[in-house]
Amino acid sequence: MATMNALIMQNGELTLTQAAVPEPMAGQVLVRSLACGICGSDLHLTRHTGEVFDLYRKLGVMPPSLDDSTPLMLGHEFCAEIVSYGPETRKQLPVGSRVTSVPILLSEHGAGIGVTPGLTGAYSEYFIVDEALLLPVPDNVPNEAAALAEPLAVGLHAVNRSAIGIHDVALVVGCGPIGLAVIAALKRQGVHDIVAADLHDAKLKTASDMGASNVVNPTRLDEIAVAAGLAGGRRVVIFECVGVHSLIDGFIRRAPAHSTLVITGVHTATSSINYAYATVKEMDIRFSYYYQPEEFAECLQAIADGDIDWRKLLTGRVGIDGASDTFRLLMRPNSHIKIVIEPWRSGALEMIV
Amino acid sequence: MATMNALIMQNGELTLTQAAVPEPMAGQVLVRSLACGICGSDLHLTRHTGEVFDLYRKLGVMPPSLDDSTPLMLGHEFCAEIVSYGPETRKQLPVGSRVTSVPILLSEHGAGIGVTPGLTGAYSEYFIVDEALLLPVPDNVPNEAAALAEPLAVGLHAVNRSAIGIHDVALVVGCGPIGLAVIAALKRQGVHDIVAADLHDAKLKTASDMGASNVVNPTRLDEIAVAAGLAGGRRVVIFECVGVHSLIDGFIRRAPAHSTLVITGVHTATSSINYAYATVKEMDIRFSYYYQPEEFAECLQAIADGDIDWRKLLTGRVGIDGASDTFRLLMRPNSHIKIVIEPWRSGALEMIV
Repeated sequence: MATMNALIMQNGELTLTQAAVPEPMAGQVLVRSLACGICGSDLHLTRHTGEVFDLYRKLGVMPPSLDDSTPLMLGHEFCAEIVSYGPETRKQLPVGSRVTSVPILLSEHGAGIGVTPGLTGAYSEYFIVDEALLLPVPDNVPNEAAALAEPLAVGLHAVNRSAIGIHDVALVVGCGPIGLAVIAALKRQGVHDIVAADLHDAKLKTASDMGASNVVNPTRLDEIAVAAGLAGGRRVVIFECVGVHSLIDGFIRRAPAHSTLVITGVHTATSSINYAYATVKEMDIRFSYYYQPEEFAECLQAIADGDIDWRKLLTGRVGIDGASDTFRLLMRPNSHIKIVIEPWRSGALEMIV
Repeated sequence: MATMNALIMQNGELTLTQAAVPEPMAGQVLVRSLACGICGSDLHLTRHTGEVFDLYRKLGVMPPSLDDSTPLMLGHEFCAEIVSYGPETRKQLPVGSRVTSVPILLSEHGAGIGVTPGLTGAYSEYFIVDEALLLPVPDNVPNEAAALAEPLAVGLHAVNRSAIGIHDVALVVGCGPIGLAVIAALKRQGVHDIVAADLHDAKLKTASDMGASNVVNPTRLDEIAVAAGLAGGRRVVIFECVGVHSLIDGFIRRAPAHSTLVITGVHTATSSINYAYATVKEMDIRFSYYYQPEEFAECLQAIADGDIDWRKLLTGRVGIDGASDTFRLLMRPNSHIKIVIEPWRSGALEMIV
């Protein structure tokens, strides 16, 4: 049985190990991972495995028998190349074609690639995708750019969920990959006033580059007051892209009347909230999680068309043997935006400036 | 100085006392209260004065100097008759005309009638309204029916906030006055599937009379599962009309994917919530509080036109000296829907069957 390099997440640690190269079943394709982004949700899952697995079990998407030490193969923001086709496939793309895909397997009841126990993920040298969901990567799109289609789709979906109008005021709190993806989508949709908030001035600079019209550092000014002042009565749409659940109640308390709060983070901890503030302001709180395949394809196309300055999002690349150290680095405060793992090679983290 | 009978809410008690008849200022009208509904929010305010005043202070609508023992004159769901006009009024309606109004005073910076320290409310014999907001009550609308325009407007506004479509499935949890008002509005808007849930079978009977297509008692069946089953993939819109904050997290955990939750209760206590369930289901949570003057007028007209079977909502009437006992009764579990106080007369609570 052929083996491959694989990164296994277990008990809060990411470890390089050897695993069997998976076999594509009916409708499936074996691909070789060319680049895979490290997602905030991968870090969250590593740090709070118990909380996330508890959610999975309660939602009925994970067998109750699997305990919190169940190993997981991460990686769902990928560019890959086709290695071989499984049975019952149409084989329309030649072996060696570069592809990406929304990270789910219809052939496994819609299970998520890179988040489901027992499935492979794109942090490994090889993994499995569905033929039906494959998107060819245009030649002018580098591997690491194709891997950005996924987080960009998360941002685009959040903007579509918000139903924002071009004359509303957007406030994007948190300028990590998702916040910046939201800003890129808002800009592409023609929203005029985009206020970006982040604790790091370097990220605010990137936010400006991506299309923010105003930036604010909450350590110096109240970001919501800034947006409300700019709005002068127009609707404010706040995008929570920080992923810190304890901040949400404060957003609600400070938000102006009739504002919309879009939650993009996956907050698995229990929070406290006083609903009365949302009530008297008649707020809408909209939760955004996944995206439609059309939104994913739109983002890949926008990258190919040069409509998104994706290079601004990329701050590092690392080989498979440098991934564990990189995870530990990202668990502490840092100024990285997106780091891609290249599982086909070795090498420590290199900064991209 | 002329005095009047007035009900004062202070330190959790409603007490009949004598107060000065207020004087109408510029743009204002002195009216005599003919009927005033007891609202769930009046009971909440009486029981949880500290919590509500704390909210008011934090929202900046109540001076920090006023403590929790500040007396309040309640009553905001009213029918009244014009007694005298203040200065700078146009006096288009003759003295003695029956009127109602959205319960705010533009002339007092938009302060709410019946909820603001220092203002009179419609539980008193006389109180103050704005001329600009007066609506004449049609002759065929009895006093107690006109007093129902306000809670009916709360329900209509919640339905409008929900953006429900006629093919969506509505689930109305709680069949008190607001839940029944929501059902009446859904019915008038042509929504086909209206599931009503309440612990009391008598209220479920009323819900059917008001237009619910299905009823469910949550002590016997999971009301959300019933609605989701009926929906079969269509959007479910859950209207929270119970006013029990601790139920909300459960609604979110049990709600089907892509459902909308409309919160109509004013939940001033701190609640706990796990946002992840709302996230993975991509729920919308919309908060509904007030209504537009147009919605209020629409409800008054619907009563006049016979489009709402308002008699089904009315379960009791009481004179001003019976109001305190009635408040104590309503603080315990009971089967009443709406009771109106008639401050111009004395008399104990009479049931209306």
